[in-house]
Amino acid sequence: MDNVIYGKNAVTEALLAGREINKILISKNIHSDAKLNKIKELAKENGVIFQFVAKEKFQPYAEFNHQGIIAQIAPIQYKDLDEFLEEKHENASLVILDGVEDSHNLGAIIRTCVCAGVSGIIIPSRRNVQVNAIVEKVSAGAINRIPIIKVNSPVNAVQKLKNSDWWVVAADASANDNYYDINYKDMNFALIMGAEHAGVSKSLLKLSDFVVKIPMLTDFNSLNVSNALSAIIFETVRQKLKN
Amino acid sequence: MDNVIYGKNAVTEALLAGREINKILISKNIHSDAKLNKIKELAKENGVIFQFVAKEKFQPYAEFNHQGIIAQIAPIQYKDLDEFLEEKHENASLVILDGVEDSHNLGAIIRTCVCAGVSGIIIPSRRNVQVNAIVEKVSAGAINRIPIIKVNSPVNAVQKLKNSDWWVVAADASANDNYYDINYKDMNFALIMGAEHAGVSKSLLKLSDFVVKIPMLTDFNSLNVSNALSAIIFETVRQKLKN
Repeated sequence: MDNVIYGKNAVTEALLAGREINKILISKNIHSDAKLNKIKELAKENGVIFQFVAKEKFQPYAEFNHQGIIAQIAPIQYKDLDEFLEEKHENASLVILDGVEDSHNLGAIIRTCVCAGVSGIIIPSRRNVQVNAIVEKVSAGAINRIPIIKVNSPVNAVQKLKNSDWWVVAADASANDNYYDINYKDMNFALIMGAEHAGVSKSLLKLSDFVVKIPMLTDFNSLNVSNALSAIIFETVRQKLKN
Repeated sequence: MDNVIYGKNAVTEALLAGREINKILISKNIHSDAKLNKIKELAKENGVIFQFVAKEKFQPYAEFNHQGIIAQIAPIQYKDLDEFLEEKHENASLVILDGVEDSHNLGAIIRTCVCAGVSGIIIPSRRNVQVNAIVEKVSAGAINRIPIIKVNSPVNAVQKLKNSDWWVVAADASANDNYYDINYKDMNFALIMGAEHAGVSKSLLKLSDFVVKIPMLTDFNSLNVSNALSAIIFETVRQKLKN
């Protein structure tokens, strides 16, 4: 119970998702509004304690944009890849992160994936940011709507996916094919997004069925990883929705 | 000269762009690498002073991910809209921000716009984040590659654009049309992206030639503004490149 999430949206979404919450702290200095009332109502429904406390209690969290509300919460439950693969998936998508280090990026990626109907996000247990308070906040509660699958070896994970008839697409700036020239319909696919600087590792590129790039209109080839993911994943949505 | 930018990429890009730099401070505790050598070389070429200082000098910037390097720099020069419109533009695009408050979002938006060949970004002088140290850092130097046009009234700016034969497209979650059903080729267009919570203001929606949404595959309709922009702007790039 040492995890903390902060901000009205993150706390609301955690309550809606039935996350295990120890206690909610609300600053005595914030004004009541619709969002805060909703939080109090949900807390009562779920039997979660909330306390009004002096703003000094928020001092340790000064670096966060906490909006005067914090919840002490159990860490998220990561999902097991085998368990995920035992479920039935049809025209589904997965996102695999390979060395994403920035919490803001991971939070934004989780949010984008939920909007785009992605079925799960695979993160490596090493050399990749894990779910922390900033990730929870930036995800705006989306973290509660999608399974996060932690794996020790992304290579093994990709091999398992391929054995289960998933197609694997890696995004890499040096690819020949453009991301929009692949047909993402009528298949389960996993999209690998690489580290902010190093890109997707060679061992994963080698295993991928497709390697695609986002063509740039300038020589400034340095797209933020969450923005790159957004461009590609919404192209897959476009293809699915477009008749 | 009270502005500061930090991080190797941001400082490198500022030097490459010929930004007016007062002084570069480098921590004595960081190791020399290719990027740092490049910075020293560029500084010498441009007659910019750099100093090696004790890491304590970086204490005021502890909240930033400064990588042991900081440059004291003149604020960016905003561009005037009239001046921009006097230049010749063909099949060009502009992005108009209407109430984006988060520095990380503005930085990511600038970066995405440069990658996608956008010709300029219009930001309102009020109720919108301005270019600050975090924006400079998150933009990874992209700030030096695109004019930022500051306007007092976004409504007046949009009217000027329309009078100059620019098409105006607003992104709004409640739109009927999907963003990919518009043809962005063979015209100059400005894309309006709204505030993180409130969306595009009514007065701007009314002036827009098209209002488009990003269709979501779930009921979690809360895409981060930089990620939403990325999905739409790279669709316009796709249309331009696709024969």
